[in-house]
Amino acid sequence: MSDEKKLTSRSQDYSAWYNEVVQRAELADYAPVRGCMVVRPYGTALWENVQGGLDRRFKETGHQNALFPLLIPMSFLSKEAEHVEGFSPELAVVTHGGGKELEEPLVVRPTSETVIGHMYSKWIRSYRDLPVLINQWGNVVRWEMRTRLFLRTAEFYWQEGHTAHATSEDAQEETMRMLDVYADFAIADAAIPVVKGRKSESEKFAGAEASYSIEAMMGNKWALQAGTSHFFGQRFARAFDIQYLDHNNELQYCWTTSWGVSTRMVGAIIMAHGDDQGLRLPPVLAPYQVVIVPIWRKEEEQAAVLEATERIAAELRPHYRVKVDAREEVTPGFKFNEWEMRGVPLRVEIGPRDVKKESVVLARRDVPGREGKSFHPMGGVVSWVGDMLDDIQAAMLADATAFRDANMHEARTLDELRAIVADGWAKAYWCGDPACEARIKEETKATNRCIPLDQEDWGPHTCVVCGQPAEEWSHWARAY
Amino acid sequence: MSDEKKLTSRSQDYSAWYNEVVQRAELADYAPVRGCMVVRPYGTALWENVQGGLDRRFKETGHQNALFPLLIPMSFLSKEAEHVEGFSPELAVVTHGGGKELEEPLVVRPTSETVIGHMYSKWIRSYRDLPVLINQWGNVVRWEMRTRLFLRTAEFYWQEGHTAHATSEDAQEETMRMLDVYADFAIADAAIPVVKGRKSESEKFAGAEASYSIEAMMGNKWALQAGTSHFFGQRFARAFDIQYLDHNNELQYCWTTSWGVSTRMVGAIIMAHGDDQGLRLPPVLAPYQVVIVPIWRKEEEQAAVLEATERIAAELRPHYRVKVDAREEVTPGFKFNEWEMRGVPLRVEIGPRDVKKESVVLARRDVPGREGKSFHPMGGVVSWVGDMLDDIQAAMLADATAFRDANMHEARTLDELRAIVADGWAKAYWCGDPACEARIKEETKATNRCIPLDQEDWGPHTCVVCGQPAEEWSHWARAY
Repeated sequence: MSDEKKLTSRSQDYSAWYNEVVQRAELADYAPVRGCMVVRPYGTALWENVQGGLDRRFKETGHQNALFPLLIPMSFLSKEAEHVEGFSPELAVVTHGGGKELEEPLVVRPTSETVIGHMYSKWIRSYRDLPVLINQWGNVVRWEMRTRLFLRTAEFYWQEGHTAHATSEDAQEETMRMLDVYADFAIADAAIPVVKGRKSESEKFAGAEASYSIEAMMGNKWALQAGTSHFFGQRFARAFDIQYLDHNNELQYCWTTSWGVSTRMVGAIIMAHGDDQGLRLPPVLAPYQVVIVPIWRKEEEQAAVLEATERIAAELRPHYRVKVDAREEVTPGFKFNEWEMRGVPLRVEIGPRDVKKESVVLARRDVPGREGKSFHPMGGVVSWVGDMLDDIQAAMLADATAFRDANMHEARTLDELRAIVADGWAKAYWCGDPACEARIKEETKATNRCIPLDQEDWGPHTCVVCGQPAEEWSHWARAY
Repeated sequence: MSDEKKLTSRSQDYSAWYNEVVQRAELADYAPVRGCMVVRPYGTALWENVQGGLDRRFKETGHQNALFPLLIPMSFLSKEAEHVEGFSPELAVVTHGGGKELEEPLVVRPTSETVIGHMYSKWIRSYRDLPVLINQWGNVVRWEMRTRLFLRTAEFYWQEGHTAHATSEDAQEETMRMLDVYADFAIADAAIPVVKGRKSESEKFAGAEASYSIEAMMGNKWALQAGTSHFFGQRFARAFDIQYLDHNNELQYCWTTSWGVSTRMVGAIIMAHGDDQGLRLPPVLAPYQVVIVPIWRKEEEQAAVLEATERIAAELRPHYRVKVDAREEVTPGFKFNEWEMRGVPLRVEIGPRDVKKESVVLARRDVPGREGKSFHPMGGVVSWVGDMLDDIQAAMLADATAFRDANMHEARTLDELRAIVADGWAKAYWCGDPACEARIKEETKATNRCIPLDQEDWGPHTCVVCGQPAEEWSHWARAY
């Protein structure tokens, strides 16, 4: 239960605000193992809705789910040189099983390219078996030093897609298709206006030839990488011997991809939309879209109010996710605060006078300026609730988009960039030299979030650091 | 793809038949870590349908999902004496994380009573917080020596429900409610006529006061425990200090339960229904309920056949899970064998003559005596396909029930019991003495599957071993 104490405001301490919201809204809690989390029922319901929105899109684009093992032989990771270098410092290692020391230690998967590559080398024989389009929902473990619920935890939940193709073009197309799927989900379902882009060499996935991401702006104007899609070329195919016989009966290496979205997405939703009252959840993903609070003072009022509440709830339930909060041990005011804190988009209040007037009081957890209460007829409730949820969803996206655009500025010098990233995202041309990229990070704490696919031209085409010619610009920001 | 070689028949070698079906139907494969499995897309789709049927029933009975950590401090397991004794030989232990040896080793969860008990002790304060009704979907690891895909693997997938209650009665009611949920799922969705019963002392869960199970008869007349529900009394509440303030403001220990169904259920479905052609899947759970095979010889026939195929598929898709198999590199006969092997309930064949006659050829993967082909009009296909799926579902349950009943016999002496369990299940009164139970196991290899809740009286009430008075009878069988 959320306690009575007011939340720390975002402007006062954004980080404290985040931690308080996560715990007081009962999204998650700390596990007894350092760096691990417990996702509580409310957080799990939100994550399940994220999963539903993604899984539907995966299936619409021809993917199937499968389940690969949690434990991976240590030797597998070494088969791809960059991959093992990237992941070894983060491994959790099983050395004993069934009371004995193991001959070869097993790692708890930090990601599954290696073991899936091993299986694909067994399964794929001919061009007829391609493409292989498989996704896995599961948990992974990366030993993290500084952790934060949802954003960075030692164990986290995610999906990892792994595909194998006959040609480079097919694999590259898949990489971009899944980036689009992620962006579509983020924008349409999570109401987060993400930017799609390519990762720089220093920021790409360990073992990838090219990595792409969707980047989202949080309420404190930091960036959060909310999903990634990787093109591996033939690197993993060569490391794991994933070959197929082509039309000419000649052996060829496959071209592979992987792509993932994790429980970080829940952190993104919290920080993209939350305010000083707590969570604000986009209706498409909210565990409860409507909460109904019956209100009565005198005992003789109770029956009629509860009867009307149940009637309205029964009308709404086939269409929306509805919660009736008829608890008697807490006041209506307490409930209002609690459901505001927990971000339910619509609150319906029904009191004795409302029953008589055949109307309800409606409170929207909407964008600034559109909150507050209004009266609505009980008749046609299914229809106007639907309209209002659609309207809130659209307003949240518009609001987040306006916020992002207002906090994204062009930097032509390193000084400008430094000033901008103190309170926003900078756009800056960059020559591609890792030394210039490193200098930006060192001097401003901002990292290269991505080189956006949409490279609208706002020249001059010179590197913000060294002044040399620059073909592309990047988004630069402090990031989670 | 299933190869051309015929399956080993069940009568020839049941165990080989099982392994071949699992692999050739592409349900699962062996992982590179000993004892672990890869669940392939077809097996995962079947498991997801199992999950869907169970999850819906969990939510209808008021449960919510949550996610608890994979890694558990070793010391947690020792807090409940029987529990640690039961699980320590099976533990996988993480000793290193982030490149360092850990101060306290972590076990990969073999089950989550301990860590969930720890969280409940933090969350539960008063009677108002009760009951806590939480389920978790996830993976667990138990180091097994002799493994078999789906039936016994080191890592497996399951759900584990964990609930906390104010009274013993509430917890016992929950234990039985979930046993009923499991039986309802098994019977209605999986078409497996399970028996509900109590486990004997020697067969119950490590740490439980009472364990209950649903037991299913496989095609070789062995038994398989397909789900369990445990009443813990206050044991875990005392071990983990799960207390609440009651109405009188006095601290009380909670009463807890846990209940689980795992990927073993997939093994149960394979063995309860499979035949010498391969899988037979109950329509409610089948990944594809209908497969459509277009057939043409001459090129000029192709367009009309494919057009009709797509039209029928489009009609069916909103209602059923449909697969169109239009591969050109394999013959129709190959496809028929393959989809029979993979257990698809209905196969629709559409050839040039069918297109002209506005009809289709239908082949049912039905119970013995009801298979074979028939013609059906293309008109009204949604309706007759639905009727036929319902009919097959019902016939599979009736068939499995008749098989079970025909292979279940009353044993009044140990010799009778020995003879019966060589090829069936024995019903036998037992005095309750573990020594008699152990002797049955030793002499017949049959174990006490359960003491069925439905104790219809078929006396004499004397123990099948020692002849002493016996209040209850058990099912005895060889078991997986």
